[in-house]
Amino acid sequence: MKKKRVSITDIAKALNVTPSTVSRALNGGGKVSEKKKQQIQALAKELGYRPNPIARSLVENKTQTIGLIIPEFTHHFYSRVLAGIESVTSKAGYQLLICTSNEKKRQEIKSFQTLLDARVDGILATVCKKNDEFGHLQEVLESETPLVLMDRICEEIETSYVISDDFEGAFQAVDFLLQTGCTQIIHIKGPKVLSTSFNRFMGYKEALRKHQIPYNEELIFEGNDPELPEKIRTYIKTNPVDGVFAYSDYLAFEAVNVLRNEGISIPDKVAIVGYADEPISTYVTPQLTSVNQRPFDMGSIAAGFLLNQIQDPNSPLEFKSLKTELVTRSSTKKNQLARSWE
Amino acid sequence: MKKKRVSITDIAKALNVTPSTVSRALNGGGKVSEKKKQQIQALAKELGYRPNPIARSLVENKTQTIGLIIPEFTHHFYSRVLAGIESVTSKAGYQLLICTSNEKKRQEIKSFQTLLDARVDGILATVCKKNDEFGHLQEVLESETPLVLMDRICEEIETSYVISDDFEGAFQAVDFLLQTGCTQIIHIKGPKVLSTSFNRFMGYKEALRKHQIPYNEELIFEGNDPELPEKIRTYIKTNPVDGVFAYSDYLAFEAVNVLRNEGISIPDKVAIVGYADEPISTYVTPQLTSVNQRPFDMGSIAAGFLLNQIQDPNSPLEFKSLKTELVTRSSTKKNQLARSWE
Repeated sequence: MKKKRVSITDIAKALNVTPSTVSRALNGGGKVSEKKKQQIQALAKELGYRPNPIARSLVENKTQTIGLIIPEFTHHFYSRVLAGIESVTSKAGYQLLICTSNEKKRQEIKSFQTLLDARVDGILATVCKKNDEFGHLQEVLESETPLVLMDRICEEIETSYVISDDFEGAFQAVDFLLQTGCTQIIHIKGPKVLSTSFNRFMGYKEALRKHQIPYNEELIFEGNDPELPEKIRTYIKTNPVDGVFAYSDYLAFEAVNVLRNEGISIPDKVAIVGYADEPISTYVTPQLTSVNQRPFDMGSIAAGFLLNQIQDPNSPLEFKSLKTELVTRSSTKKNQLARSWE
Repeated sequence: MKKKRVSITDIAKALNVTPSTVSRALNGGGKVSEKKKQQIQALAKELGYRPNPIARSLVENKTQTIGLIIPEFTHHFYSRVLAGIESVTSKAGYQLLICTSNEKKRQEIKSFQTLLDARVDGILATVCKKNDEFGHLQEVLESETPLVLMDRICEEIETSYVISDDFEGAFQAVDFLLQTGCTQIIHIKGPKVLSTSFNRFMGYKEALRKHQIPYNEELIFEGNDPELPEKIRTYIKTNPVDGVFAYSDYLAFEAVNVLRNEGISIPDKVAIVGYADEPISTYVTPQLTSVNQRPFDMGSIAAGFLLNQIQDPNSPLEFKSLKTELVTRSSTKKNQLARSWE
C-alpha cells in the first residue's frame, strides 16, 4: 500500500473544522475567516499537503496530458513521428502518455480505454494493421475526446487525419526508375490489409502507364512471403529485370542481398528503391534510394490538429496528406541512361 | 468540454433516493431493498452508467497500470527492453503508460510526476544520461510507489536494479580481438557522463592487462568528437592499428566507413567490434561482431522485480547484472591467427 497522502479531511480533523472549510481555505472561493485561513494554510504546509491532481482533474476536466497510441517502436518511422509530436506538445505544456498496440486489436482497445480512464485531454493514434473493429474509436468520439488519426486511414471514423501520400510517393519512385532507363521493374508488395500497400501498388502501376510500359503480373512479389528471396533469385535468373521498387527499405535490403549473392551489380544491372528512408538506407552498401515520408512533420501536424480541437471543440475537422520526398542514393543510376540490361 | 458521464447523483435524483443508496445498489455492500436495487440497476443500464474508474481507483488505490520512463526509442535497444517488459506485464493484466525523457532531466521529472498523478501501481525507468538530480526519484520512494531502475545506475537511489554487465561485455569483446591476433586496438569511448562508458573502458583495459599488452592512451578516441572520422583516418595512416573496439555499433560503423574509404581490408588488416548488437550490425558490410546486451531479458526481469514489489511491498529489493553475449560476424577474424599487420 502506498503511504497515505495527507488529505483535506486530516487537516479538518486536526483543526476541528469541516473539510469544505479546509478546501475553501486552500483553493480559494467561498468564505473563510482570515485567521482560520492562515491556520489551515500553515498546517497544510507543515504536513506537506499536496492537492490530489486526479480529484482535481475530475472537477476541472483537464489533465494537460495527451494520449498517444502507436503500433510499435521497432521502426524508426514511429520514433520520428513521436519526435514531431513532442516538438509541439512539450512547447504547449502537455505531457504525453504513450501506449503501444503491437499491432494487436485487443491491446489497442485496452490502450484507448486506459487513456480515457486517465482523462487525457485528447488522443493521437495510428490504428493496427488489422482494422475491422471501430467500436472503441466510436466510443472516443462519443466521449467528445478529440482524436487525430495518423498514417493509416480508418474509413468508418470521421475525425481529423494526417497521412502520407503513398500513391504519389510510389509514383515518384517508379517514375524515377523509368526515367533512368529501367523498364522491367519488380514490385515487392506490403501487407495486404494496409491501405498503404494498396496505394503504393497503384502508384507503381500509374508510373508504368505514364511511360507506356505494359503491366506484368509476374514482376509482382509478396513481401511477407517467407520464400521471397528464393523466388526473386529464381525469377531474375531467367527473366530480364532492371529495377526493384520495394514497399519498405527492409524488403529492398532483401533484394540487395539476393542480387549481391548472384553477383549482379547495383545499380548498373539492377537499380533498387526502398520506401520510408529508415536509417538502414544509409547503412547498406550501396546506400538505398528511398522515399522519405516526413514522419516528423506527420507528428507535428497531427499534434497541431489535436491542440486546435482541444482548445476549441467546435473547430472543424482537419485533413492533411503529406507530400513525400525521393532521396536518391547509390542504389539507383544518377542520370537518364539507356537500358543497360541487354 | 467532454460529454457529461451519467453519475450516481443523476440516477439518485431521478429515483428520489440518496446517492449512497445508488452506490450500494450498484456496487453491492450495505442494505438496499431488492425492489429499489432492481429499479436502480435497470435505470443505470438504460442511461449507460459506467463506474468512474479514477474515482474508483482513489478508493481502491490500484489502477492496474505500470509507468515506464525511457530516454528515447531511436535506439533499437529500448524497443527491445519495452518488448521484454510487455511480455510480462500484459500476461499479468497490467497496462503500460510510457513517457519519454529525451535525455532531458526536466522532462524526466515531469514524467515521474505525471505517472504518480495517474496513480500507476509501480514505475520502471532508465534515468537520463545527465544524472545529477535525485529529488524526484526520492519522492517516488517516499510515496512508496515501487520503482525499478534499468540499464543505468543511480548510486544515490536505493531500489531494485537490472543492469547489463558492461565491464564483462567489453572485456569479452577485447579479449576476443586479442585472441584473434590484434594487439594495437583502438577504443572509441562513449559519453563521459555514463557509467556504461566508464565500465566498458575498464573492461577494455582489463583485457589488455590479461594479455600483457601495454595500455596506449593514443589509441583512445572520444565518440562524441565531431572530428572522430578525421582523427582516426590521420592516426591509422602513420601508426599500426589492427583492431577497433567501439562503445556502440554506430561508432563502429563510423570506423568501418573510414577504413573502407582508405581501402583497408576488414577484418584482414583491422578487425572491428561494436556494442549493443543493434540491427545496424547486420546491415553493414562486413556485418559487425557485437556485444548483445539482452535488452529483452532486461525488460522482462525488471518487470518481474516490479510485480514482486507491487504484490508484496515488504519483499526485499532485487539486483540483477545481466551477462552479455559476444556475437561474432565477418568484421572480426574467425580463429586465433598471428598478427597480420606487418
